[in-house]
Amino acid sequence: MKTLVVYSGGIDSTVLLFEMLAAGEEVGAISFDYGQRHSRELVTASRICGGRGVRHKVVDFGAMSELLVGSSLTDSSIPVPDGHYTDESMKATVVPNRNMLMLSAAIAAGLSSGFDAVAYGAHAGDHTIYPDCRPEFVEAMQHAAALCDWKQIKLLAPFLKWSKADIVRRGAELNVPFEQTWSCYKGGAAHCGTCGTCVERREAFELAGIVDPTHYA
Amino acid sequence: MKTLVVYSGGIDSTVLLFEMLAAGEEVGAISFDYGQRHSRELVTASRICGGRGVRHKVVDFGAMSELLVGSSLTDSSIPVPDGHYTDESMKATVVPNRNMLMLSAAIAAGLSSGFDAVAYGAHAGDHTIYPDCRPEFVEAMQHAAALCDWKQIKLLAPFLKWSKADIVRRGAELNVPFEQTWSCYKGGAAHCGTCGTCVERREAFELAGIVDPTHYA
Repeated sequence: MKTLVVYSGGIDSTVLLFEMLAAGEEVGAISFDYGQRHSRELVTASRICGGRGVRHKVVDFGAMSELLVGSSLTDSSIPVPDGHYTDESMKATVVPNRNMLMLSAAIAAGLSSGFDAVAYGAHAGDHTIYPDCRPEFVEAMQHAAALCDWKQIKLLAPFLKWSKADIVRRGAELNVPFEQTWSCYKGGAAHCGTCGTCVERREAFELAGIVDPTHYA
Repeated sequence: MKTLVVYSGGIDSTVLLFEMLAAGEEVGAISFDYGQRHSRELVTASRICGGRGVRHKVVDFGAMSELLVGSSLTDSSIPVPDGHYTDESMKATVVPNRNMLMLSAAIAAGLSSGFDAVAYGAHAGDHTIYPDCRPEFVEAMQHAAALCDWKQIKLLAPFLKWSKADIVRRGAELNVPFEQTWSCYKGGAAHCGTCGTCVERREAFELAGIVDPTHYA
């Protein structure tokens, strides 16, 4: 099977990439530049793909980016909140309809380039804050993907019921170079250690019982 | 209700726009530049919106357009087929996953700008050729739209069970300026009269018993 991984350069999608490679899939990766505050994650994604010989495409959402407003991840006038990633305040990091748009684009790219499946790394820890990581949403999109073209393309979300700690544990088995991955929403020289996604990252290593190789500021 | 109409400047979406205006909705329109062979339909869309005081946004898919390949509507090396719009050959005009991508972008824009609904003009005549106009696909997308954000946004497709002749009849009641609308896939000075969408257009007026004001080459 030829699988296109929606790839951010973070832990979840990197473990997903390694999982697909380990399963012997023919793997490609696609990332989206949607006007994130920083391009750190896109650089990370390219580097990790390059190291594994995975073809990686970065799609510039260009003018589309302006549709994805109202989130602290894209609008620099809204501060990135510090705190626990399940806090109500973290909803400031929700980018309206980002996942539907990214999945639609990945499915279009997949259909155009002969992929059999698109895979993305939504997991159980995302559900409280991100409406478009909930299993019901993913199921609706899987249904839409199965109907959108005369050719068949599948939408895979193998981590949907996993915690982030489960993903870290699986990543350790697959020798994922965690130190190369990037999570922090702030995009400084090092992970800040205090934004929602840094807190989630630290906690996942702790719960998984795996040494966290990340350097926090 | 504040409704955002996915607007191509063709008959179906123009009647939809007038239907929403007639219902007293607060209406906006959104069109997509996805590297169509010609920009005729985008110019038409802007002109009709301008005449009715409807705010119209054209979103440039930019680099995204390259994902939408393999169709005679976007790839000038593939000829636009002549013939009946239900012929198997018309599948050459299917743009991979175009509707999911356009609907996702319209939903993102709608959420960002406080719309309650996104409406699009898929109708029963599209089902044989365009997989992403089938009721099952639309239902899956309606379901995804209802789940993609914490705010509620609806996806409306009021013509889903109508024939194009039904749409023309309704348009005549609403005084839609059909002569201003544009359907032809070829984008010449006048409608060619022979491509699938021109054949469909002529037939719809005939079946509706409405005089066709279109000038065909």
